[in-house]
This record gives sequence, C-alpha cells and structure tokens, in this order.
Amino acid sequence: MDAIEKIARKYFGNEVTARDRAIFEGAITLGAIFHQFTGLPLQKSLIPLVQELIEKTMSIQPFIQKITVKINEKEVRDHDHSYDYSVLTGDLLELEVISQYENARVHFGMKYVKELDFPLMFIKKIEKI
Amino acid sequence: MDAIEKIARKYFGNEVTARDRAIFEGAITLGAIFHQFTGLPLQKSLIPLVQELIEKTMSIQPFIQKITVKINEKEVRDHDHSYDYSVLTGDLLELEVISQYENARVHFGMKYVKELDFPLMFIKKIEKI
Amino acid sequence: MDAIEKIARKYFGNEVTARDRAIFEGAITLGAIFHQFTGLPLQKSLIPLVQELIEKTMSIQPFIQKITVKINEKEVRDHDHSYDYSVLTGDLLELEVISQYENARVHFGMKYVKELDFPLMFIKKIEKI
Amino acid sequence: MDAIEKIARKYFGNEVTARDRAIFEGAITLGAIFHQFTGLPLQKSLIPLVQELIEKTMSIQPFIQKITVKINEKEVRDHDHSYDYSVLTGDLLELEVISQYENARVHFGMKYVKELDFPLMFIKKIEKI
Repeated sequence: MDAIEKIARKYFGNEVTARDRAIFEGAITLGAIFHQFTGLPLQKSLIPLVQELIEKTMSIQPFIQKITVKINEKEVRDHDHSYDYSVLTGDLLELEVISQYENARVHFGMKYVKELDFPLMFIKKIEKI
Repeated sequence: MDAIEKIARKYFGNEVTARDRAIFEGAITLGAIFHQFTGLPLQKSLIPLVQELIEKTMSIQPFIQKITVKINEKEVRDHDHSYDYSVLTGDLLELEVISQYENARVHFGMKYVKELDFPLMFIKKIEKI
Repeated sequence: MDAIEKIARKYFGNEVTARDRAIFEGAITLGAIFHQFTGLPLQKSLIPLVQELIEKTMSIQPFIQKITVKINEKEVRDHDHSYDYSVLTGDLLELEVISQYENARVHFGMKYVKELDFPLMFIKKIEKI
Repeated sequence: MDAIEKIARKYFGNEVTARDRAIFEGAITLGAIFHQFTGLPLQKSLIPLVQELIEKTMSIQPFIQKITVKINEKEVRDHDHSYDYSVLTGDLLELEVISQYENARVHFGMKYVKELDFPLMFIKKIEKI
C-alpha cells in the first residue's frame, strides 16, 4: 500500500475488506456516470464520441480498471431539424464497469430492465485474483 | 424478498451477499450526490434548503436509509452583489449515508481531506443487525 | 451602474443594449436549470420542495427577478417499491423566468410542446419599464 | 421559415426580433455547458477529448453555429496517484459560442475574470449579416 493510500485508509473502518472496497469504488462510478451525463444533447453520429468520453473520464476515478459504455442507438434521434435531437437518459445507457482493489476484482453492469421500467445497476461477478 | 426485488436479484451474481449489496447501494448514492449537485448556485441563506433537498431526493434511491448533508458554511459567499455567489463543489460537501439490505447496514462518509486535497468517500462501519 | 457591473460591462460589446442584456441573462438561467436538475430522483411528495429549491437557487444568478417552476405531477411516480421513482427530465418541467436589466424586463417560458416532442424554451414578452 | 420553426415561433412574443432570438439561443447554450459539465473528472491528457465532446454535443442545440472550448491546462492535475485528478469547474473553462437566427449572428464568450472572482459570460459582438 503506497503512502497516499495509507492516508485514505485511515478513514475506512478496520472491518472493510478488499472485496468491500472494490464493490464500493465501482458502485460510486456507476452512480457518478448516471448523474454526470444525463441531460447531455445527443444525436446518432455522436454516439461513439460520447461513449469514449464517458469511458475515459470516468476511468480516472480511484480503482476503476475498465468502463464500457453502450448507448442504445435505436432510441437516439437523427437530427433532421433544429429541435430534433435526443437527450441522454439512464434508459439509453448500458454500462459495464470493472473495479479492482488489491486481490478483489468486481464486475458491474447497468441496463434498462423492462419488467422494472428502471435502469438497474447490479454486481455481475466478484473475483479473487 | 418481495416480487420486485426477485426480478432485480436475477441480475446479481449468486455470490453477492447482503453485505456486498448494502455497500453497493450506498456507494451508488455517494457518487450520485456528488455528480448531481456540483455546479448548483449557492448562498449562505439557502444552505438549509439545499441540505434538505439533497437528503430527501437522494434517499429515494433503493435501500438508502438516511442521508445527512452538511455544506461548509464558512466557504460559501454572502451575495453582496450580482456576481457574488458560490457554486457547490465536492470540497464544500460533507456527507453521511446509511444503507441497509436485509441484515446488513453500512455507514458511509464523504469529506474533504486536506492531506489528499480531495473530497474522499469512505466506508465508516459495516454492521450486522 | 455600480463599480462591479462596470467591470463586467467591459467584456460586453458597445452595441449591447439593456434589452439584449436582459434576454441574455434570462436565457442563461433557462439553460442552466435544464442541465443542472435533469437526473434528479423524484417522487410526488417531494415536488413542492424541488420546485422551491430550483426557484431559490437559480434566482441567485445575475439579473434574475423571479422564477416559477411547475413539475408535471401526473407524470411523476408514487414510490410503491424500491425501484419505483421518477427522474427529472426536461419534459416534466414547466418554467417561467423573469429577468431585468436597467429598464428592460423580459418574460421567458419553457414547456414540453407535443407537436415538436421537445421541451421548448421561448421569450414570451419584452417590456420597457 | 420552415414548418417546424413556424410551430416554435407561435410560443414567442410578436415583438421578438431575429437579434433577440439569436441572443436567446446562444445564451441558453452557455448556461447549459456550465451546468452539464461541471463535476466531470479530468486529467491533462483528456483535455482535447473533453473539449471536442463539449463543442460537438452542445452545437446540436438550436441555432448554434460554432462552439470553441478551451480548458485551462495549467490548472489541471497530472494524475500521479489514485486521488490525483481534477474536476471540471467553471473557473477552468473558456468558451466561445456563435449563434445565428436569420440575419442576426451573435458572438458570446465566457471566461474567469479575476477582478470579479467569477466565470463571467458575455456578449462580444452582434452582427447583421
């Protein structure tokens, strides 16, 4: 553990394990992505750029290893006239996030679940590596 | 477990425990608060209203039991003229969040840590209840 | 014109009139409200608090005289279970903003226009007072 | 004026000129950029991508002709360790926006003004073309 992480670690309870911590860090990033980017103006041709931007900026957050963003293209408008564009909402977003803290690696997802009518965030898999 | 939660549960790995889940849900809310409210115009007299709004709206999120928000009043401007007001940043925010999933209850915090020059989010305590 | 406004005024072109300026300041606030608050978790019982918060915080912005926010209650969910809540979008928002700069007062609106399938922002009236 | 714009136009007062309208549309975009992107995690190497993303997504808004974004690189951290990154604030942003409605073209700016300790938005020039 480096000197910087030792300072941070003092704020965490002693019972917090690497597994707890990896879950914690990845979940923060899921919540952050949703609330940072909803409201963004969007059209079909800009989807690759928006996906890349979210992946790269949000991967800066502590202990995030990889982010994959997929915006549901079928639901995004084409921009035929001035008022014809979409705005990013959680329902349009599909996310995969991988976090790692020491030997714990956690895989997260987010996608719109029709039965819940809700963009659900979830933990797909917890690995010991 | 109610019918709705059974639907959600199918998206989570089988290895995910109540403890994992409580950490997950609370951490999402920490990330969400930071990215939803940074940028908000602010002056001293509005601090109690802003604190209440964050506490109440963000407690709607799944499995959040309690949120306490403290905005650092000393750093907020007084509004003596048109351009004299603050904008909410993470450094001004102190947060406490409690989440609960089944018998696991988790206490989280966020505050600006001078040594890191960073608004650190952390897990204070994990309880079995 | 006070000393502070004299500093700000140096950045504006000489051709900018009080009318231009009042339009400018009110329109900034419309754009700001939309992009600050979309994504906010919402349920019916919190509508009055959210409306008050938007009105008061965004009225801090320069030369804004009055803001009235109406969230379309019929479209907001009731919160019967953990995943049953709404998220604020532009389509749910109805706004009235009044700005004033010297003797120019401008009345703005925003509402969802079905024919455009778009939350349209517009200038309702320009007054000389 | 096309059919779509005729629908929008009905919501505007009759006294609203092309000049008024061009000011209105550009100012909305200034307010929108500030409140959409503050809070974004940032490091030096991502500045060109963030600038491009803001320019392209926000140019989708009605009657926006061109946006130029400059993020103050000197104030952005380098990312030497997990907690060492910046978050976008208005003070780091320098913006140029050009809007056009019929024969009116308006040039806007935003930059941090030290004397005001405020990221000031302003109208640089109004042209008849």
